Amino acid sequence: MLKAAIIGASGYTGAELAGLVKVHPELSLAGLYVSEGSLDGHKAFSSLHPRWRGLIDEPLLPLDDEALSRIHTEADIVLLATAHEVSHDLAPGFLAKGIKVFDLSGAFRVPGEGFYERFYGFAHQHSDWLAQAAYGLAEWNQAAIQKAKLIAVAGCYPTAALTALKPLQNAGFIADNNKPIISAVSGVTGAGRKASLATSFSEISFKPYGVLNHRHQPEISHHLDNQVVFQPHLGNFIRGILATIYVQLNDDVTDEQIAQAYHQAYDGQKIVRLTGQWPQINDVAGTPFCDLHWARDGNQLIIVSAIDNLLKGAASQAIQCININQGFSPLAGLVQE
Amino acid sequence: MLKAAIIGASGYTGAELAGLVKVHPELSLAGLYVSEGSLDGHKAFSSLHPRWRGLIDEPLLPLDDEALSRIHTEADIVLLATAHEVSHDLAPGFLAKGIKVFDLSGAFRVPGEGFYERFYGFAHQHSDWLAQAAYGLAEWNQAAIQKAKLIAVAGCYPTAALTALKPLQNAGFIADNNKPIISAVSGVTGAGRKASLATSFSEISFKPYGVLNHRHQPEISHHLDNQVVFQPHLGNFIRGILATIYVQLNDDVTDEQIAQAYHQAYDGQKIVRLTGQWPQINDVAGTPFCDLHWARDGNQLIIVSAIDNLLKGAASQAIQCININQGFSPLAGLVQE
Amino acid sequence: MLKAAIIGASGYTGAELAGLVKVHPELSLAGLYVSEGSLDGHKAFSSLHPRWRGLIDEPLLPLDDEALSRIHTEADIVLLATAHEVSHDLAPGFLAKGIKVFDLSGAFRVPGEGFYERFYGFAHQHSDWLAQAAYGLAEWNQAAIQKAKLIAVAGCYPTAALTALKPLQNAGFIADNNKPIISAVSGVTGAGRKASLATSFSEISFKPYGVLNHRHQPEISHHLDNQVVFQPHLGNFIRGILATIYVQLNDDVTDEQIAQAYHQAYDGQKIVRLTGQWPQINDVAGTPFCDLHWARDGNQLIIVSAIDNLLKGAASQAIQCININQGFSPLAGLVQE
Amino acid sequence: MLKAAIIGASGYTGAELAGLVKVHPELSLAGLYVSEGSLDGHKAFSSLHPRWRGLIDEPLLPLDDEALSRIHTEADIVLLATAHEVSHDLAPGFLAKGIKVFDLSGAFRVPGEGFYERFYGFAHQHSDWLAQAAYGLAEWNQAAIQKAKLIAVAGCYPTAALTALKPLQNAGFIADNNKPIISAVSGVTGAGRKASLATSFSEISFKPYGVLNHRHQPEISHHLDNQVVFQPHLGNFIRGILATIYVQLNDDVTDEQIAQAYHQAYDGQKIVRLTGQWPQINDVAGTPFCDLHWARDGNQLIIVSAIDNLLKGAASQAIQCININQGFSPLAGLVQE
Repeated sequence: MLKAAIIGASGYTGAELAGLVKVHPELSLAGLYVSEGSLDGHKAFSSLHPRWRGLIDEPLLPLDDEALSRIHTEADIVLLATAHEVSHDLAPGFLAKGIKVFDLSGAFRVPGEGFYERFYGFAHQHSDWLAQAAYGLAEWNQAAIQKAKLIAVAGCYPTAALTALKPLQNAGFIADNNKPIISAVSGVTGAGRKASLATSFSEISFKPYGVLNHRHQPEISHHLDNQVVFQPHLGNFIRGILATIYVQLNDDVTDEQIAQAYHQAYDGQKIVRLTGQWPQINDVAGTPFCDLHWARDGNQLIIVSAIDNLLKGAASQAIQCININQGFSPLAGLVQE
Repeated sequence: MLKAAIIGASGYTGAELAGLVKVHPELSLAGLYVSEGSLDGHKAFSSLHPRWRGLIDEPLLPLDDEALSRIHTEADIVLLATAHEVSHDLAPGFLAKGIKVFDLSGAFRVPGEGFYERFYGFAHQHSDWLAQAAYGLAEWNQAAIQKAKLIAVAGCYPTAALTALKPLQNAGFIADNNKPIISAVSGVTGAGRKASLATSFSEISFKPYGVLNHRHQPEISHHLDNQVVFQPHLGNFIRGILATIYVQLNDDVTDEQIAQAYHQAYDGQKIVRLTGQWPQINDVAGTPFCDLHWARDGNQLIIVSAIDNLLKGAASQAIQCININQGFSPLAGLVQE
Repeated sequence: MLKAAIIGASGYTGAELAGLVKVHPELSLAGLYVSEGSLDGHKAFSSLHPRWRGLIDEPLLPLDDEALSRIHTEADIVLLATAHEVSHDLAPGFLAKGIKVFDLSGAFRVPGEGFYERFYGFAHQHSDWLAQAAYGLAEWNQAAIQKAKLIAVAGCYPTAALTALKPLQNAGFIADNNKPIISAVSGVTGAGRKASLATSFSEISFKPYGVLNHRHQPEISHHLDNQVVFQPHLGNFIRGILATIYVQLNDDVTDEQIAQAYHQAYDGQKIVRLTGQWPQINDVAGTPFCDLHWARDGNQLIIVSAIDNLLKGAASQAIQCININQGFSPLAGLVQE
Repeated sequence: MLKAAIIGASGYTGAELAGLVKVHPELSLAGLYVSEGSLDGHKAFSSLHPRWRGLIDEPLLPLDDEALSRIHTEADIVLLATAHEVSHDLAPGFLAKGIKVFDLSGAFRVPGEGFYERFYGFAHQHSDWLAQAAYGLAEWNQAAIQKAKLIAVAGCYPTAALTALKPLQNAGFIADNNKPIISAVSGVTGAGRKASLATSFSEISFKPYGVLNHRHQPEISHHLDNQVVFQPHLGNFIRGILATIYVQLNDDVTDEQIAQAYHQAYDGQKIVRLTGQWPQINDVAGTPFCDLHWARDGNQLIIVSAIDNLLKGAASQAIQCININQGFSPLAGLVQE
């Protein structure tokens, strides 16, 4: 059994990670951690996340020096469900001890001058690790994920967008100068587990946010290798992302070619489902799947993808990355077959 | 036009008050106020409550000494949509200047030794005003409301409960030693407008709270003049209260007597609707009405009442009280006839 | 008082019409009608729509021959909240009697060969009336609405889309060959009041529908005079539409020009609010407003508009059209000023 | 592997059963069936329930004579997720062939003269099987479930109510002549998967139903061996039941005795969780658990229990019953340990 420590287990993503590690046939929990000053320190995990009562009652331990030493000795891998800056600061220490790091923050996803200053508000200090990190988009980056020591698990919106767009981009179907438009909506858990008027039940209402300046736009563009327009919306549901994507095709692309591109990409990949009917949030919420369907009219192509933002958009994709990196069965801990 | 100042206009109840005063044929707004240190000071009302953009764009003014002087000179009445302690501290000052006060907090609702210490956490300093205050349950206390200087508008749950129970209590139909059981659910706005993990969209789920120690239990018991069991629940909807009330009847009470008690109480009172079908939240949300229906099987009576917690449970009932106190038409500003 | 008969008053749009007519200072109700065979015939309006209990308790009358005669004699105007084919069949009869018709269906909105066959499934028999009908987009077609006998009130999605796009189109800001992309979401009442598994509470989930073949695409394109891509989604909320619109601008369009185009179009039009912050469903639900905001990055413009699908997208826009057609105050019955 | 045929697999409960059988280590699917005339016949299970796409794509087979023969030969057990009358008619045929039947309908739950006529609208024809059937309340009836051929899985509300009340009743803590009051709310899936205006998203609103005449009242009373008042409400959520239960205690019952009664009943029963904090719907939705907590004030006891109506209230409890009946591990297929 590979021993996995989870840092940031008080949040929604950390909680999903804990749940997935617990049932994974090849993984065991090597501690659930919160930041040193967290008010949740020493509370039972299940007192914050009562859904798991009786299943995961371990305490949330403060990440003090003693805890770091313990992780250094006892853990085989570390899962970081922490804020971007925290991941940025913590990852190199674990890596220096030879512990593999699966980071669910944005801290190691996008190389490039000035990106972190502009979109994350801090200067990146670890350009070496940034360069070495494998981008954890499980269906598309298996070779790199397999040999990496640091895996930067793909963001939630980027996962939905890239899963839909990469087959087209790789086949050269997107018209020159066309920026695909990604109009997407996320459930409220995407904003994290915290007290905030903006995510209060009484205030939540379907609306756009991050207009023309969301940090996931450059993440998508970089990993697609094509410029895109990305517009997120806040949906009035708890979990899930649905992306509706508008693409101009080159003139000569046939229906068969499009279908072939998608089937070639995903027929062997059980987590991506070519559904043959339009995806919807409820079909993927609580599951590790990405549902995908498309239609075209002339050169206009519309693709819709749907994922659970906390699972395929975070925790279950981290497990996919562990499975690839460790040579476990690709669906271990995710789908009972 | 009677000039009404609203204090606490950044909250949900204060916002509803502003909307109601704005359309009332006999009232005009004499300022929207927030606490002196509020971060919302000097913002436009409609920037916090964008539903009213173009209708109420007045600024939220900090309640500093200058503001108090201005209210003392310019306002005819003051509406307090403030925290209990704040109402407790502010009301006597306005009253001393001869300004009538309609208080939507709990600060002047329940006389009785030790009540405020136990249920509100502060010692009441104004027992004289507490004794003089009229309890603002509009359909039941018109004479007192008419002549009072201080009206303590009834609480939200108490309004739903008392409207259902007072006709029975007054008729002597409730069995001796029977404590009516009030099992009620409120929308999330009942918790106020504030950042809180407990009212986060991602956390809200139908559940009980305040079990066997909610401050509305003694408020109901006192104004009903009968002990009750009161159990509130948090519902996953924004506004509205529905109370399901279980009463043991005396042996000889007939169906006709029950119907007569309700019709006698409410046939002339347009705000209370004897619906003839079971009330539901959506029928009353956004309206000033209280819907009421009942059924019995032997000595077991079930009564269901529904209101909007922010309107009949707060702001529109305050307007009813103003209408009574000032001799306006009972439905002025509430129902277009 | 102008006497208005409402046909189709059992549905959601018809109910909103009834509510608006009831409070309109210049209108009185001249009957609420349902189809001759409807199971709702002779029921009280408020038994179907209990929100209006005590306010509108009139019966829903079956539209038989006697009812038609009564409308012919007693009504000044007729409001059709009926299915497209029903409006198509009924309107000419009323018009022949000199009764003005405000039709909320799609039956008279789009002239053009083959449109009704393709998108509505029936052959249009009244090309004369189709040609004469004024398109009821209140802010944009006042001259025609003023003199028309038949007003085809604009569709819900088209209202949200055209309000956002017409200022740009008229100013010539949209890049040649750019089809604006309208990615929109509607509340479930948009599907009408009927038993259907597709709109069951247990099945509703955010999802796209009508992909690349929705009838509102040609309605928008026709009245904008520009091709568009239109993609509707079903949202998990009861009422409201939010449209996020992606436009490529011509190279030389400045920020000031865009702002000027919108302000010129709407500064005198209280129903369209240039909000200065991003619109959201809850700010417009239950109101007659259309909220509008935009941002640009280079040539990419994003505009977001939000309306209540049953009000500005149907019933309150019909009232705006009546006000224009009859020379009433533009906001009569809609906004208390 | 025990071969299980599921009849009624198009509904919500049948779908959950299919999902649970699929992952159960000791069970295999022996066919998914729908009624002979169902429009869903021959469709893929996952086209109706797309959440399971790629996991359960088997067809829904019409239950014609050939299908019955096939089940008779191939199945070891039959799970009936069918309408009450259908279960009533089908069960004896399977039982006659020696196939064990786990019935999730109400057809074999309550013996007693006239019960089915009054509460289910049909005369029961199989009093022998009704007498032999074990009531499938897994924590309370293990001996009977173990040896029975026909298991009548407990109803959803009765499961929530009886789990809370049986420890008190068995300990003799309920005051003489006190009818416990069960005020409960269920998610909309409780109404089944069907087109209905009453369960339309646009119409759903928190409300009471079945007042003083719901068929679950006698089911609870019979299996508790005490009269109760039962009042269900429709909640605006998809799945889950929360019951708030009001009990008058005998005078001399201590806090310790109450705690002991619950711990004695459930400490060895992992599915019932004595949570130590108040249950809420989201903690149990999608899980097989029943969460339970209580508080008392004098003789007044309030107990709150929460379950998933489709799981502990139906499908997962059926699996518990299979596990007991077949001697499998009690949590097999339900909780990964």
